[in-house]
Amino acid sequence: MWPETEVTTKLNIRYPIIQAGMAGGLTTPEMVAAVSNAGGLGTLGAGYMSPEAMKKAIREIRALTTKPFAVNLFIPQPVVENPKIIDEMNHHLDFYRQQLHLTNLSPETPLFLDSFPRQIEVILSEEVPVLSFTFGALTEEMMNKMKDAEITLIGTATTVEEGILLEKSGVDLIVAQGWEAGGHRGTFLSPIEEATLGTMALVPQLVDHVQLPVIAAGGIMDARGIGASLHLGAQGVQLGTAFLTCKESGAHRSYKEALLYRKKGEATEITSVFSGRAARGVKNKFMAEMEDYPGQLPAYPIQHYLTEDIRRAAARQEKIEYMSLWAGQGFSLCQERTARELIKGFIQETTQLING
Amino acid sequence: MWPETEVTTKLNIRYPIIQAGMAGGLTTPEMVAAVSNAGGLGTLGAGYMSPEAMKKAIREIRALTTKPFAVNLFIPQPVVENPKIIDEMNHHLDFYRQQLHLTNLSPETPLFLDSFPRQIEVILSEEVPVLSFTFGALTEEMMNKMKDAEITLIGTATTVEEGILLEKSGVDLIVAQGWEAGGHRGTFLSPIEEATLGTMALVPQLVDHVQLPVIAAGGIMDARGIGASLHLGAQGVQLGTAFLTCKESGAHRSYKEALLYRKKGEATEITSVFSGRAARGVKNKFMAEMEDYPGQLPAYPIQHYLTEDIRRAAARQEKIEYMSLWAGQGFSLCQERTARELIKGFIQETTQLING
Repeated sequence: MWPETEVTTKLNIRYPIIQAGMAGGLTTPEMVAAVSNAGGLGTLGAGYMSPEAMKKAIREIRALTTKPFAVNLFIPQPVVENPKIIDEMNHHLDFYRQQLHLTNLSPETPLFLDSFPRQIEVILSEEVPVLSFTFGALTEEMMNKMKDAEITLIGTATTVEEGILLEKSGVDLIVAQGWEAGGHRGTFLSPIEEATLGTMALVPQLVDHVQLPVIAAGGIMDARGIGASLHLGAQGVQLGTAFLTCKESGAHRSYKEALLYRKKGEATEITSVFSGRAARGVKNKFMAEMEDYPGQLPAYPIQHYLTEDIRRAAARQEKIEYMSLWAGQGFSLCQERTARELIKGFIQETTQLING
Repeated sequence: MWPETEVTTKLNIRYPIIQAGMAGGLTTPEMVAAVSNAGGLGTLGAGYMSPEAMKKAIREIRALTTKPFAVNLFIPQPVVENPKIIDEMNHHLDFYRQQLHLTNLSPETPLFLDSFPRQIEVILSEEVPVLSFTFGALTEEMMNKMKDAEITLIGTATTVEEGILLEKSGVDLIVAQGWEAGGHRGTFLSPIEEATLGTMALVPQLVDHVQLPVIAAGGIMDARGIGASLHLGAQGVQLGTAFLTCKESGAHRSYKEALLYRKKGEATEITSVFSGRAARGVKNKFMAEMEDYPGQLPAYPIQHYLTEDIRRAAARQEKIEYMSLWAGQGFSLCQERTARELIKGFIQETTQLING
């Protein structure tokens, strides 16, 4: 049932199961290492991390495992934003700061818009075995550096066209991120509203148009989703939401509870109000209200930095109505187990399922 | 690989593969009979058919097969529409009538809003073996009549809640219609924009909350999708788009060509501009332009009747920019084969896939 494949060989892992690199402190070194130690590929979600924090986390992972792991980064886009739009949003957000009793209104927000080259330097200097990324492709120059360093590269596609472009760019593996997936949409070629292919439709169409192995993502929560993905033609799977509620996850307790105890099939929605970029999460008051914001939303990642104090305060105060509750459409299937138990369960149950 | 299951037993068919009941003349008696003769379940899409036309088509099917088949109907909703809104739309549509050289502008449009009870009478009098339906549940009275007549009932759910309601209502099987599916969304409990679960997320969550067998639909185009659906916990599959391009399909030649020869992964979109109810199709000029209609869209099914002359004229003139090109997200996988070849291929390839 679990033979060596191109995916396991390229990643040097036992099982083609990847824990997605969710940004924002969700992927602790403990979780990443536990997944890798159990035979899958753990991923540090470093999209928003400073190079220093990345370095520290990578070393913590290395202290916990000798197995391969990945670091996930966000490909930067050129950002030019009208200061007036930023100011207006900052003032508008004061309403939420007041709800959360924050006294520093309309704070001067540090915008880390140029950390990507330094993040890449950390990947190289720390000799990270696998780099996965989203929101685009690497430049040829960066790609060459990665190849020279023999770092395995995983790109993220939400359409067939994006997959073809990533293959041409020289990545080793392609994650097919379906509509169901939680967190940020990886879309970078189409307008976001046109890149809505569900996993069931995306995976076989992508598999037919690229030579590289495809890793399915989006709505996969258990052995059923894993077995289904392999039948669709994927050679591996990437799960994010399923790991959010595991013991080692860095998700705040109230976030985990929101996923574990909310009503069956409750709706997630795609929103840009937290970061300036479309992402899927459980709908809450902040999302609902901010969708009606009359002004213009500052571009990603500026909006992310503008809302950061609000999201942090909300987490501290356990006010889930103002937190970003990223989650995929299958979140009602979340389990409260260790990452190791999750992986072991996935393997055992998928084997049973596929062998009948 | 294809043992008797609750689905095949309840439907009295060999393979748990259902051809979806697409309305608007797409499901010819030849196609329905060919699918049933090949061991699947053909479905007459009778949503918009007059009782007389239904009766004729059912008798044609019966002349071509002795096997079970289904008829699909639309559960009616109470419609009250402001005549001013209807008039405004009718005048607006004159622009398209002129593009198509139609001389009867702002026609008096006959609105068939009360044919459902008479459609149900045809189901009973013609002793149709299987009734499938969408947009809601049957009333208790109608349900009792169907049970007395021993007609097998298939409801359509796009959320867990809808599936639970359908089970309580007394249906025999539930189609889980994922986000990827072409044509009308079956949603009837949630606001349409909240019922967007992809097949990969919907099927396992629904399976966990109902006792009845679940039939997966949405994005399933070939053996890969069928195998995947069975792994997700579905006991059968329903495919619509995959049958649109088969030889016996009633889809207009230019519609078939649009599906067979369009670019890989070209986007479909959900729109209400053709019928007043959300449905997925290949985006064309009419969809794009009408999305900007400044007035209010008349309710379903009034908008359907208002646009009918335009869609018919467009088909006659092979102007796909003004036709409704219903299609699911997997349409680039469409094949030009007979319905029999399709079913035989699905069975053979799924067997190979699952048996390795």
